[in-house]
Amino acid sequence: MAKQKLWGGRFSAGSSALLEEFNASINFDKRLWSYDILGSKAHAKMLCKIGVLSANELSQITQGLESIASQIAQGKFSFEIADEDIHMSIERALINLIGEVGKKLHTARSRNDQVALDFRMFVLDANRAIKDEILALIDGLLGIASRHTDTLMAGMTHLQHAQVVNLGFHIVAWVSSLKRDVERLDSAFKQADFMPLGSGALAGTPYKNDREFLAKELGFGAPTLNAMDSVSDRDFALDLLYAIAMLSMHISRIAEEMVLWSSAEFGWLRLSDEYATGSSIMPQKKNPDVPELLRGKSGRAYGNLISLLVTMKSLPLAYNKDTQEDKEAVFDSIDTALISLKILREALLSAHFDTDKMSQACRVGHLSATDLADFLVRECKVAFREAHHITGKVVAYAESKGVDISELEEAELDTLLCEVKSSATKKAKKVLSLTRSMHSRDTLGGSSSTQTQSQIDSLKSWLNLAREEKYQYKGQI
Amino acid sequence: MAKQKLWGGRFSAGSSALLEEFNASINFDKRLWSYDILGSKAHAKMLCKIGVLSANELSQITQGLESIASQIAQGKFSFEIADEDIHMSIERALINLIGEVGKKLHTARSRNDQVALDFRMFVLDANRAIKDEILALIDGLLGIASRHTDTLMAGMTHLQHAQVVNLGFHIVAWVSSLKRDVERLDSAFKQADFMPLGSGALAGTPYKNDREFLAKELGFGAPTLNAMDSVSDRDFALDLLYAIAMLSMHISRIAEEMVLWSSAEFGWLRLSDEYATGSSIMPQKKNPDVPELLRGKSGRAYGNLISLLVTMKSLPLAYNKDTQEDKEAVFDSIDTALISLKILREALLSAHFDTDKMSQACRVGHLSATDLADFLVRECKVAFREAHHITGKVVAYAESKGVDISELEEAELDTLLCEVKSSATKKAKKVLSLTRSMHSRDTLGGSSSTQTQSQIDSLKSWLNLAREEKYQYKGQI
Amino acid sequence: MAKQKLWGGRFSAGSSALLEEFNASINFDKRLWSYDILGSKAHAKMLCKIGVLSANELSQITQGLESIASQIAQGKFSFEIADEDIHMSIERALINLIGEVGKKLHTARSRNDQVALDFRMFVLDANRAIKDEILALIDGLLGIASRHTDTLMAGMTHLQHAQVVNLGFHIVAWVSSLKRDVERLDSAFKQADFMPLGSGALAGTPYKNDREFLAKELGFGAPTLNAMDSVSDRDFALDLLYAIAMLSMHISRIAEEMVLWSSAEFGWLRLSDEYATGSSIMPQKKNPDVPELLRGKSGRAYGNLISLLVTMKSLPLAYNKDTQEDKEAVFDSIDTALISLKILREALLSAHFDTDKMSQACRVGHLSATDLADFLVRECKVAFREAHHITGKVVAYAESKGVDISELEEAELDTLLCEVKSSATKKAKKVLSLTRSMHSRDTLGGSSSTQTQSQIDSLKSWLNLAREEKYQYKGQI
Amino acid sequence: MAKQKLWGGRFSAGSSALLEEFNASINFDKRLWSYDILGSKAHAKMLCKIGVLSANELSQITQGLESIASQIAQGKFSFEIADEDIHMSIERALINLIGEVGKKLHTARSRNDQVALDFRMFVLDANRAIKDEILALIDGLLGIASRHTDTLMAGMTHLQHAQVVNLGFHIVAWVSSLKRDVERLDSAFKQADFMPLGSGALAGTPYKNDREFLAKELGFGAPTLNAMDSVSDRDFALDLLYAIAMLSMHISRIAEEMVLWSSAEFGWLRLSDEYATGSSIMPQKKNPDVPELLRGKSGRAYGNLISLLVTMKSLPLAYNKDTQEDKEAVFDSIDTALISLKILREALLSAHFDTDKMSQACRVGHLSATDLADFLVRECKVAFREAHHITGKVVAYAESKGVDISELEEAELDTLLCEVKSSATKKAKKVLSLTRSMHSRDTLGGSSSTQTQSQIDSLKSWLNLAREEKYQYKGQI
Repeated sequence: MAKQKLWGGRFSAGSSALLEEFNASINFDKRLWSYDILGSKAHAKMLCKIGVLSANELSQITQGLESIASQIAQGKFSFEIADEDIHMSIERALINLIGEVGKKLHTARSRNDQVALDFRMFVLDANRAIKDEILALIDGLLGIASRHTDTLMAGMTHLQHAQVVNLGFHIVAWVSSLKRDVERLDSAFKQADFMPLGSGALAGTPYKNDREFLAKELGFGAPTLNAMDSVSDRDFALDLLYAIAMLSMHISRIAEEMVLWSSAEFGWLRLSDEYATGSSIMPQKKNPDVPELLRGKSGRAYGNLISLLVTMKSLPLAYNKDTQEDKEAVFDSIDTALISLKILREALLSAHFDTDKMSQACRVGHLSATDLADFLVRECKVAFREAHHITGKVVAYAESKGVDISELEEAELDTLLCEVKSSATKKAKKVLSLTRSMHSRDTLGGSSSTQTQSQIDSLKSWLNLAREEKYQYKGQI
Repeated sequence: MAKQKLWGGRFSAGSSALLEEFNASINFDKRLWSYDILGSKAHAKMLCKIGVLSANELSQITQGLESIASQIAQGKFSFEIADEDIHMSIERALINLIGEVGKKLHTARSRNDQVALDFRMFVLDANRAIKDEILALIDGLLGIASRHTDTLMAGMTHLQHAQVVNLGFHIVAWVSSLKRDVERLDSAFKQADFMPLGSGALAGTPYKNDREFLAKELGFGAPTLNAMDSVSDRDFALDLLYAIAMLSMHISRIAEEMVLWSSAEFGWLRLSDEYATGSSIMPQKKNPDVPELLRGKSGRAYGNLISLLVTMKSLPLAYNKDTQEDKEAVFDSIDTALISLKILREALLSAHFDTDKMSQACRVGHLSATDLADFLVRECKVAFREAHHITGKVVAYAESKGVDISELEEAELDTLLCEVKSSATKKAKKVLSLTRSMHSRDTLGGSSSTQTQSQIDSLKSWLNLAREEKYQYKGQI
Repeated sequence: MAKQKLWGGRFSAGSSALLEEFNASINFDKRLWSYDILGSKAHAKMLCKIGVLSANELSQITQGLESIASQIAQGKFSFEIADEDIHMSIERALINLIGEVGKKLHTARSRNDQVALDFRMFVLDANRAIKDEILALIDGLLGIASRHTDTLMAGMTHLQHAQVVNLGFHIVAWVSSLKRDVERLDSAFKQADFMPLGSGALAGTPYKNDREFLAKELGFGAPTLNAMDSVSDRDFALDLLYAIAMLSMHISRIAEEMVLWSSAEFGWLRLSDEYATGSSIMPQKKNPDVPELLRGKSGRAYGNLISLLVTMKSLPLAYNKDTQEDKEAVFDSIDTALISLKILREALLSAHFDTDKMSQACRVGHLSATDLADFLVRECKVAFREAHHITGKVVAYAESKGVDISELEEAELDTLLCEVKSSATKKAKKVLSLTRSMHSRDTLGGSSSTQTQSQIDSLKSWLNLAREEKYQYKGQI
Repeated sequence: MAKQKLWGGRFSAGSSALLEEFNASINFDKRLWSYDILGSKAHAKMLCKIGVLSANELSQITQGLESIASQIAQGKFSFEIADEDIHMSIERALINLIGEVGKKLHTARSRNDQVALDFRMFVLDANRAIKDEILALIDGLLGIASRHTDTLMAGMTHLQHAQVVNLGFHIVAWVSSLKRDVERLDSAFKQADFMPLGSGALAGTPYKNDREFLAKELGFGAPTLNAMDSVSDRDFALDLLYAIAMLSMHISRIAEEMVLWSSAEFGWLRLSDEYATGSSIMPQKKNPDVPELLRGKSGRAYGNLISLLVTMKSLPLAYNKDTQEDKEAVFDSIDTALISLKILREALLSAHFDTDKMSQACRVGHLSATDLADFLVRECKVAFREAHHITGKVVAYAESKGVDISELEEAELDTLLCEVKSSATKKAKKVLSLTRSMHSRDTLGGSSSTQTQSQIDSLKSWLNLAREEKYQYKGQI
């Protein structure tokens, strides 16, 4: 027979065991325990401030809560499914521990605003923790980029060799997407930084709740505006799920390149033995499991986002039990993001870039073809569309001969460019140099070493600023 | 320092602890243990049959595996993260237990085909378990339907009263969607019933694998056709995820109606105390948590489906580590489906339908308006579009008077229908009867009690047939 | 035979017709025409500034582009599938119109940065247009809320009557979610406000591009940092798709309530004839098609978001053709958002709230039960958990008698509360008043008329501020 | 002022223009016209059979409908938004054309069952059309596979060279996934093959509808069981969306490999000029736009699936306007599937496989390492785990020497294998032959040419059977 519920007054029959199993959230929401304690302590303090609790009662409750917190932290607390959720678990334990006074704690609040508070604090802390990990990854990447602003590399579009760039430049592109992830987290944080406690079940309470006090006490920017919205809103969780989905998408792109570059065909990257794995059957294999898993985990992050979006669809106000489905997806996305960022950083920092293979690759695919076209425009006054056409023919010639355009002789170029009536064509050979090609794109955002370094510098300044932000974690993620 | 890997031959450095944490699947794939044992036993038997193992070796391996199985079943087996996955865990335990002979088990197979086998057997078993639960739910629903083929109810479209039906008829609509779920599971089962073992890493093995024997031994229809496809295919898992997503959608629709009908406004359904919950703050509340959670869990089922679809997108052949992400989503959807079906059945069987309120509702919303229009067509030879128009005006008159169309007097009807030049209009009052209206739709698929009963009978026959299917579970879901 | 491509130099065979049909984006990206013209004009101006074009050439190109813009605006321009996309269409038309000079326009740019620019400008404009519509909706809603701060209404949780609130308070909850949508759009705008032109194909160009000038000329905050990122980044489109998905979720919740409230069972809302529809067969029906469609369109908004997330997964840098799939989803979500917001506003402003039915509903469900519990805490010094329990029994008594708790007599209350040893129980009857109940929750965020009005005032101030923002649309969404 | 609605009887005000724009489906559901005509003709025939229409009336209606069909087919029919949908468009046109008799057509049906019928016929036809295209693609692929059962290729796992296979074998893996797509379509077809007409608005009609006759007339397997389910069920559309999502996932995998193989690094595949594209700026580029777009379109297919799943979530019975959102997603997925299959076939059939590069690749990555391990097991009686370990060291030696394991000398092997006490080690060199390796995996599903051919033969038999199926298209997809 199931335990008597704290809400069981009007019920003539107890809950079925199946209901308890299905309905209870304690198996996963116990993770919110430190936030629940924090919220209860602040709530008790506020109740004392408005005269609902005496100083003595406040002291008993606070000590009781701290004692429970310490039990939980030490793994000595027993969570029972009959308690349904973390709120009831802690409240019941408190009553057991300090007696009647404990029954006063739930005055002027409801589980609806309690969970809204706990979960929001958790999400805010997780947001900052993920931000910290992205910043650490960016720091690592900028270090690599700095060392490779002169490392030639075949820049690609459509996975086809396109133009010569340097490896640092490519890594700056990765960092640019991660920087947006940080900014997205910042926006999400700012939108979530409102304190819901005091919203009661849906409409506030008849007590003189001091919600400004609560907000300050718990480290929030301000209290929420409307109680009904406060208990039914899960935007803050969705914003984090979305930010993580985007992060996971960016990671999947980096990971895809790590997989490609680790292949025998590319050979641009060798993962360290520490971050690679073998095969149970093929003894020669060294598999890029880490980037593969990183890539695959985008599925999880997308799925978690869609999951909560679906759950929230069409829910009438205010609180509905459907909303209990909000937590597991968020927990999973957060854990995935944190470990993914850590291991991506380690795997890249310990990997070896084969810069010889990278620069050899530049000699395949006529990477300086655009340079020739641009040369014809600039030096020979050919309109770009014409220049593009002429260069196309030069490329076709080089292909037929089985060489890269950069390997054509001056004499061949002369013949090929004879339709361009300009003496400047003699200088054509020079512009086909691969190093020169990389350096030639030397304006804001371009691939030259100078521009790449300037992009790195700009990102480092931003990183330093971002790291200066002071954030005090509230509880234990 | 991490444990030496079974695949570690060519590696000079061990794995990092972070890699192990990130890479290992043992925390979740241990759930496949019984299938892994089954697969290994069959594989050993086959190796013996083709002369790779002696009868004595087979016997040692079989006994070793059974001993491990028994340890795991009793909770005495220690799964270690350094073992990476369930396959390595069991193989290492076997070697520890029986020594050198154990090292022969992995001959002529790879983890790639091993996991493809284990997971497929798991999915097939889960498919049948879910089917069983749907059949049990259908059985319960048909029982309720049978008792309510005469219970008047306001049939709705657009959540507006539309026409009089009976409760049994409405429940048959629910069952119809669940029946499709069973058929969808059947199709998924049939498409998945192929045995992948013997595919090796991606290309088969140089041993004389008898894959027909393996298929038979393990209870499959046939071996798979192509090794490369066998190790990279996860269609069987997706088909189950989709079938569960559809089931969850159907359940969300039933649940939505349970929530609506439990509201004070409808008052059509009272959940039993055993399957309802209270509020921590509002003592009068009796909340339909069960249907709400059932409704909300559609998010999870959709999310899991999209998650694996995303993971599989764009993967080159054959096996990639991304695929390891296939399991957790499937486990979660299966567990959710099984408990959801169980509790939905219990909640409905223990609930009370307030048939008085249901039939009272039929007197609101002019439910027999279409009957009047149809009467004008049939008896008074008015074209349907005209009849529709005339009836619209009768409804407007009733509304202005604040009564239901079924409560209009004969005299009023006479006046309202005077534009219809037919003496038959005198019989109009009769067709406005609500009970008559329900019974009047008396062809195949219609709402009359007779048709409803015939639909129930047809479903019962199908159910009996479906239950006769013999299926032998392979392992422990 | 297909038309000669502008890029066709090295190709020996032309494109197949099937390729053109499959590959071309002109059928949908022609919608970007005004942005393409804007971008080309600015680009030409920049080319002149850096000496690539003469003043005379610039003038010819500018006039040519304006003439083409005018043709398109008047529907006189013929888009051909052989031109592949809007960029090629306009470039070819320009060359046809002004001859050789036109061939110079594509100097120092690529279609990769061109489409990144066009699409980003489009997305920024659409972002602001949607914001404007949300603000208009909020304005309408605040008007309704202002008129109903005294209108009693049964506030719900779990679709069960919970506590008395007022309609204005409920509408403020709607507005709160829409306010977050505006803020989400603001964040998305800010993150997208960077100018990609000058990034070339992936690595910048060898010309002296003045990208600061371009950014200013086109009304952007700043140029993007890195060319490779600029051509492969579609975060800006995803951020808008997400913001719309969230908006659609909020709308689906409002719409769900509109459907519920329009039902015969609730009867709280009557849509105007202008914004309701009838049935082709049931003459009495008045269907809430508008909120139903609004609710259903969340599917589309979620689908569009997932669609682009999937497309972007795992793409290596830099530009890949996959990215062409970004536009149709964005167009569809934008169009859906704009019309949805318009019609939701109209439907609500023209609807009638049946305030009598709303307040009658408050007398069902013991809405003042929490007030009684809180009274026992405050006036009779009972601990909340005890008070909750006692009130549960009072509710059970009222239910057994078939009345609402607010209708119990003083004498009955005396008897029921006799276990509470306090003379204050005599005042219990008073706290059961429904109006008093609504007003009693009178702290920040609470349901009292005063608090509701203060929430409305706060939102109005915010709205006025939000409307003051000056934004100059760049082109034609 | 809006046109008078056919359902407008009880409405005092007309629809707003905004409502019409938002609510009308005619812009997209006109695509169902041929099915609407077919359904109406069969319905009229049935009405005549049961005495509602005279033979003369049937004849007028039939001729009227055929005349309208002919107008539409010739593009001479004007669809107006005021008609809302294709059903009303055709009904109004019929009434305009043949007068009062036309008003009788809508007897005994509703738009709810009409659209359920039209859309279902459309979906069934589209299902078969997609099947036909997959079969054509499979036919083409089997042709390629047949020509390449001896073409050596580096089979991969984790994008790392794993074992030698042949190209035909790899293509058979592709075909295996496509075969499942066909079977999935078959299952979906079978589950959808039920005829909903006669379900009326939600509960049948009071006429003596002969639904068996209708089912036969329209070429369905049987009538649906329950009217309420019939008008609210959209499983048939979802099943097709899912089948297409799976197909698109399989195509994305093939496309990913086409992109990889077309890269300079692989060089295994050259797309024909007809199915490749150039760059607007880089004259040397030949881009695999076709496979990239094919890969990207998985986003669209997934999005469309999730879109309808979301829309259907939580809808109460029976018809709701939300359901109108079912069509555009389905249309888009179907069109995408059909053209994708066509172009994938053409692109592959016209492409060139560089078999030299493919076989050269086999000499990189120690592809015969597993053969050596298996040899040690079979010939030298080493346990597999030991053999795996020893081979790992051989590989390490070869790597340190910079050669492939297949290039090691007999003497070197002797030394390396000295710990294996067996004279058989002398034969080790032989098993390292790449061709032998491919042929050695010669059991069911394996990579040998013989097994590959046998897989091809089996698929050809299946294909021939699948093509024999006779299906009569109902209308115009």
